[in-house]
Amino acid sequence: MNRQVGTWFFPSRPSILSTGVVGGPFEKKSPLASHFDHFYDDLWMGQETYEKAHRELIEAAVHYSLDKINKQESEMDIFLSGDLINQITPSSFAARTNAIPYLGLFGACSTSMEGLAMAALLVDREAGKYALTGAGSHNSAVEKQFRYPTEYGGQKPPTAQWTVTGAGYAVVGKNETTEKLPCVTSATIGKVIDLGLTDPFNMGGAMAPAAADTIERHLKNTGTTVEDYDVIFTGDLATIGRKTAMHLLHEKGIAVKEETFKDCGLLIYRAEEAPVQSGASGPGCSATVLYGYILNEMKKGTWKKILLCATGALLSPVTFQQNESIPCIAHAVTIEI
Amino acid sequence: MNRQVGTWFFPSRPSILSTGVVGGPFEKKSPLASHFDHFYDDLWMGQETYEKAHRELIEAAVHYSLDKINKQESEMDIFLSGDLINQITPSSFAARTNAIPYLGLFGACSTSMEGLAMAALLVDREAGKYALTGAGSHNSAVEKQFRYPTEYGGQKPPTAQWTVTGAGYAVVGKNETTEKLPCVTSATIGKVIDLGLTDPFNMGGAMAPAAADTIERHLKNTGTTVEDYDVIFTGDLATIGRKTAMHLLHEKGIAVKEETFKDCGLLIYRAEEAPVQSGASGPGCSATVLYGYILNEMKKGTWKKILLCATGALLSPVTFQQNESIPCIAHAVTIEI
Repeated sequence: MNRQVGTWFFPSRPSILSTGVVGGPFEKKSPLASHFDHFYDDLWMGQETYEKAHRELIEAAVHYSLDKINKQESEMDIFLSGDLINQITPSSFAARTNAIPYLGLFGACSTSMEGLAMAALLVDREAGKYALTGAGSHNSAVEKQFRYPTEYGGQKPPTAQWTVTGAGYAVVGKNETTEKLPCVTSATIGKVIDLGLTDPFNMGGAMAPAAADTIERHLKNTGTTVEDYDVIFTGDLATIGRKTAMHLLHEKGIAVKEETFKDCGLLIYRAEEAPVQSGASGPGCSATVLYGYILNEMKKGTWKKILLCATGALLSPVTFQQNESIPCIAHAVTIEI
Repeated sequence: MNRQVGTWFFPSRPSILSTGVVGGPFEKKSPLASHFDHFYDDLWMGQETYEKAHRELIEAAVHYSLDKINKQESEMDIFLSGDLINQITPSSFAARTNAIPYLGLFGACSTSMEGLAMAALLVDREAGKYALTGAGSHNSAVEKQFRYPTEYGGQKPPTAQWTVTGAGYAVVGKNETTEKLPCVTSATIGKVIDLGLTDPFNMGGAMAPAAADTIERHLKNTGTTVEDYDVIFTGDLATIGRKTAMHLLHEKGIAVKEETFKDCGLLIYRAEEAPVQSGASGPGCSATVLYGYILNEMKKGTWKKILLCATGALLSPVTFQQNESIPCIAHAVTIEI
């Protein structure tokens, strides 16, 4: 047998037992708003700072995901979480609150699927009964750290993306109910791909080759084709990155189609109404869209099998200032119902 | 059977097949210097910036670990790495170089054992044949980011610790040789513990309760006692933290002994010669001491079974400025030969 490097199979089909999805005031106007459990009316969320508000988002999403299945924090075996903030402090402070054994992750906006892949592996290989995983982002905390204070009012080019304020978390475990639940059947861990792009206001373009590489490897390693998936979703490539990824995949002989190759960064906001330039981004983007909209549609019967390939740009303000290009990664997870 | 929350068992005994350990000029004077593969004569390591030097450290340690067993990067199934720098860019840029499927981790100074625990799980549960894992730190890159530029010459209190410049990496896999190799038999993932300490110049004291909690849980979940281990090592508690941890463990009825409860942060430098205040710290501390000195001593027959509990302080300069206390974590790994 050929080596299937970086692809994990989950024969026991670990299920997504429950999810919690919360957002900010801007997300309240999302066309996917009905798939959120809660919205905050302002970006402070009752906290003194944006970083504490970010932690609040994570804690709330965790709360909803546990509450819906009447589980306590103490019943969870592991908490897998990450975010974009330096030293992922919102995740670590949320881990202090829930007191679950904690593995801190960093994969920028791909963290959502890094966590889900690991959660499925842990449950499938019986290293724990319940894994709680997810990711979040907070627009103002991220803008403050990576760019300018929002009060500065700096203009952005049309290739820029808008960081989602939101968090999506899920409990992964064995399905002990009679209800049909979405389950994770395989995952492919990304390699870092960097074609030399240096513009932090065009992250979608930089991340597209990583998405194309992971999708190609996932299809090859799992012996599947584009036709086996009702939809292939990318994390947050937005308009420009999505077009680039489609082009790269076509070049590789992988014929993704306009109508079944979707991007979470283009689904969460109405482009014509929201000043989001190329589309949305942030670890909270793919996390909220998957754990809300996509899984709800799967439960309704709209789709039976999807691939979600979450993309991440692994740069920092320091690497940008030091003239490094943008290394990118993408992790893909197959979900079936 | 009671739930053994957060503890993983590895019945197939994944082995540490090879290691690579590199250090800076200060580490060259370490009493453990003979256990390093290479030292750099200055902190720039042929690079333009400290962050790029940090990446160089990781790449060199990876190189040694692969080279010693004649393996290529392309034979590795997964690269598990992390560091203290914002967005863990030294790890991610090293992952760009080696092009191995990559999971970015963040557990501050506990990252070394977060990676080893996951590497052992992946190999044990056959999610990959070879896992490459480790952690590093670079004194000047860390000082620049977390504290003051070193040129400022700010004085530090005696409770402060000195960040190791070094990286330790290891290849974990099935032992297919006749040689006896150290193997990983169990691991316990830490919970975030925060007793309200707020002084970033006394991290050892802040981390001690996390170490005590994880050691207590590991012993209970694995059904072992202090006597089952030749030595219990902590990651980087240093003088004050080690004393506090011993005290806390004694209070829990766990009678760790002065001579068999050691701290990597106290082993790597000669306190009387080096201006390291309370001792050493940094993800590179436990990584270099384990993958160099400790494993070499195990191979020589000095110890048969050890526990390494790596500690991490999950704060950031922003959380400190926002008057948060310091959340801490510790991950413990049992290694036998």
